[in-house]
Amino acid sequence: MSETVRICEVGPRDGLQMARGAMATADKLRWIAQLAAAGLPEIEVGSFVSPRLVPAMADTGEVLPHALALEGIAVCALACNLKGAIAAYEAGAQVVAIPVSVSDTHSRANVGKSTQAQIDVVAAIADWLHAQPRPVRIDAAVATAFGCSMEGEVPVARVASVASALERAGVDELALADTVGYAHPGRVRQAVRATQDAVGARLVKLHLHDTLGLGLANALAGLEEGIRAFDACLGGLGGCPFAPGASGNIVTEDLVFMLESMGYRTGVDLARLIEARQLLAASLPRETLRSGVAAAGIPPTFRARQA
Amino acid sequence: MSETVRICEVGPRDGLQMARGAMATADKLRWIAQLAAAGLPEIEVGSFVSPRLVPAMADTGEVLPHALALEGIAVCALACNLKGAIAAYEAGAQVVAIPVSVSDTHSRANVGKSTQAQIDVVAAIADWLHAQPRPVRIDAAVATAFGCSMEGEVPVARVASVASALERAGVDELALADTVGYAHPGRVRQAVRATQDAVGARLVKLHLHDTLGLGLANALAGLEEGIRAFDACLGGLGGCPFAPGASGNIVTEDLVFMLESMGYRTGVDLARLIEARQLLAASLPRETLRSGVAAAGIPPTFRARQA
Repeated sequence: MSETVRICEVGPRDGLQMARGAMATADKLRWIAQLAAAGLPEIEVGSFVSPRLVPAMADTGEVLPHALALEGIAVCALACNLKGAIAAYEAGAQVVAIPVSVSDTHSRANVGKSTQAQIDVVAAIADWLHAQPRPVRIDAAVATAFGCSMEGEVPVARVASVASALERAGVDELALADTVGYAHPGRVRQAVRATQDAVGARLVKLHLHDTLGLGLANALAGLEEGIRAFDACLGGLGGCPFAPGASGNIVTEDLVFMLESMGYRTGVDLARLIEARQLLAASLPRETLRSGVAAAGIPPTFRARQA
Repeated sequence: MSETVRICEVGPRDGLQMARGAMATADKLRWIAQLAAAGLPEIEVGSFVSPRLVPAMADTGEVLPHALALEGIAVCALACNLKGAIAAYEAGAQVVAIPVSVSDTHSRANVGKSTQAQIDVVAAIADWLHAQPRPVRIDAAVATAFGCSMEGEVPVARVASVASALERAGVDELALADTVGYAHPGRVRQAVRATQDAVGARLVKLHLHDTLGLGLANALAGLEEGIRAFDACLGGLGGCPFAPGASGNIVTEDLVFMLESMGYRTGVDLARLIEARQLLAASLPRETLRSGVAAAGIPPTFRARQA
């Protein structure tokens, strides 16, 4: 009965990269330690991208060794190109995540390359990483998988075809990402099924936003289609520079509450997770943290299914 | 493919009864007219309860005739006892809704009577209404159906048993209400199934709150169990006086977006619905209106399935 669902906390990367205000590196290290101590199995701690374009991620190289010293977490870093992936590897990242937008227009805006060119980048990264002595998990995030603020509808067949190409490129795990927050449960089902048809269990994860208030409903739809891994952000931070108003990833606290309440194991101690909001709030006073569970308190009917 | 889902806008009752600040009667009438014009098929316009206890509802008798003059809506009023139900009938209500808490403690706090005594009240109301010349739909809301802030867990068997008693008492439709906002999708499924086993299609509606951020996920779970009617509040207003922090019903705008995106027909024009927020915001400046769709805008991928 107690199936495990893996949550990857992407707050230190996706949450902070667009936040109002910058979190000091020392705070970031303390915060990541708190997230790990709350039981999160995987944390995306930063990205190896141009510090000029994303100044909040400039300290990722400094953050990584501290994160690697923490117990029980897989340390993930984002990279958009081979240079970034090499830097991630050399810094010790255990998971390297690479975004590939199904929408060509979004891909050019986000990584400066067409979708196909970015798939080729993933292939080059996979070839390079596979040739290294230390094994690294290679994740690709199939971005704009549920719609695009620039192109509008993104055909499900194109999502599946990009996923297939990424499988051939040598990635270990695929995620479908609702980059601009347009997903709804029906669309989640369609895209997940089409991608499963194309790449089977290689599709592991969903990266969902709560832009239209449907984040957890979309997570539920994914769960029902067999998805057992989700990205989420403490306090629902995050967004997308090319999706105005696309405020926030799904809220880790509320996701943990939902999953544990439904009998899934996340390994996360919800009370400790909520405590980790304090440092986040203090470090980013201009950001509004969301979370129903944090606002209303953990209800007495909640029975966390800890190990 | 295009199944209909009926949304009852409960903002004028559930949304306003605890709001910070009072909406002037004239504004209320304009707002209800806007909600009707947006295509909502049913509106709970007020309650016939003690104006001393719920001052915001003191003008319900004045509101009803105006609402009845609007085209295309079923006008619903809440009553907690026979006196209120008679007043609702005499004012012309087409639907009378009566709350019955499964939790005895909550029932005593909410209506001053035990669960069983309130079931007897419903029977007396049904007898009286059925004896009148004008047909009125009698709804009972099975409150605290997913948990109680006072009693904690509310056994599913007790929910089903209260539903059965209410069916015997003569109600036309039953709703399960997440009065304090503790529901999660697994619990929604259990309670809906148990109640359907007990009363079949007499279970029509869910009344959900977004307290823990799970409102639409819970609605999705209900939808998948065959539920085709939901209460919701424009801007996610509402709460429960006995559930501290239990902020807000599910957001009508986001619910309409979800349902229409999934191919269900609600009859609601989403753009017009969002416009009706302006008057609400202007009338209740101290209230925070929620809604992902209203904040981010209706995405270009949305195709409302209007008639």
